[in-house]
Amino acid sequence: MKTTTLTLTTGHTKTFVDLTREAAAFVAGEGDGLLNVFVPHATAGIAIIETGDGSDHDFMDSIDRLLPVDDSLYRHRHGSRGHGADHVMPGWVSPSTVVPVIDGRLQLGTWQSIVLVDPNRDNPIRKLILSFLSD
Amino acid sequence: MKTTTLTLTTGHTKTFVDLTREAAAFVAGEGDGLLNVFVPHATAGIAIIETGDGSDHDFMDSIDRLLPVDDSLYRHRHGSRGHGADHVMPGWVSPSTVVPVIDGRLQLGTWQSIVLVDPNRDNPIRKLILSFLSD
Amino acid sequence: MKTTTLTLTTGHTKTFVDLTREAAAFVAGEGDGLLNVFVPHATAGIAIIETGDGSDHDFMDSIDRLLPVDDSLYRHRHGSRGHGADHVMPGWVSPSTVVPVIDGRLQLGTWQSIVLVDPNRDNPIRKLILSFLSD
Repeated sequence: MKTTTLTLTTGHTKTFVDLTREAAAFVAGEGDGLLNVFVPHATAGIAIIETGDGSDHDFMDSIDRLLPVDDSLYRHRHGSRGHGADHVMPGWVSPSTVVPVIDGRLQLGTWQSIVLVDPNRDNPIRKLILSFLSD
Repeated sequence: MKTTTLTLTTGHTKTFVDLTREAAAFVAGEGDGLLNVFVPHATAGIAIIETGDGSDHDFMDSIDRLLPVDDSLYRHRHGSRGHGADHVMPGWVSPSTVVPVIDGRLQLGTWQSIVLVDPNRDNPIRKLILSFLSD
Repeated sequence: MKTTTLTLTTGHTKTFVDLTREAAAFVAGEGDGLLNVFVPHATAGIAIIETGDGSDHDFMDSIDRLLPVDDSLYRHRHGSRGHGADHVMPGWVSPSTVVPVIDGRLQLGTWQSIVLVDPNRDNPIRKLILSFLSD
């Protein structure tokens, strides 16, 4: 298995980071296999969605609607306002996904991007683990 | 890795398509490994749920409740009513899943089916990528 | 592929079961690869979240808020109250996840645990399938 750990600067605001370019570069020149994208943090997730035409912001809005930043809803309270919600999010938006790779190319659809979803404002640096397993 | 791309006709209504039979046939006769089921579209997801006793419709109802077809909620607006919601869904219901395979058999539980969740009414044809990785 | 099926006693209440120790033991001494954690039941899911500081309970609360135990919402009705909601949950909280393994060690972050989410009160015994695929 080929694996690497990337370090991303996500800053102190809620963020989306499009990881598609990094993922594509990581598997370029490899053969057929499965790419696992994994974020080793308890307040972040990985999504495969369209970006750039509003849907990424729509998705973040839906997170705010469904997992509201209302600290009275959560037992886990420290850090910035909304930290309790941030810890619940990965139960719904998993920190792990798998993308098929054929002949060194991600088999994403035209409008799909791999995105790091990072609502957490307290943790400006994030690690990301890419692992490519082939036979 | 063994891989194939299927083409499914999902029509112009919200649809569930049970993929279990196709997935089982794809791995039949293979050994042990992991099956990845991936839909390369930005308005569809893959779920592993019970079908046939109402739960699939219950699941679709829950999508309508949590991600309402109310275009005022979404920035991404084109196509049919509800298209904005359709683009948010894959953030919550991922287009990718993995099922273990032992001795050429999917290790699904008795009541589990692999299901394509396709709320999109504008895209009647869908591709599906099945990939089986063994050692 | 190395695979095993564990049997867990989850009892007749809504439960979280931390599977991290079992998963770590399963891959200990192995090399690099991907671990698939899969629960072959239609009323359970797998999450990767923080445990022990309230977030696991916050996550269960969020499930109750978003998928309420209100049998009028669901067509699938038998067993205990809330069984309809239990069947919808795996559409949102998948029964399958993948964790990268390097040199026999799970690459979880400091605050991440692998958790079985089992809202079902009617099924006190659960199976769990761990599968480790390396090259």
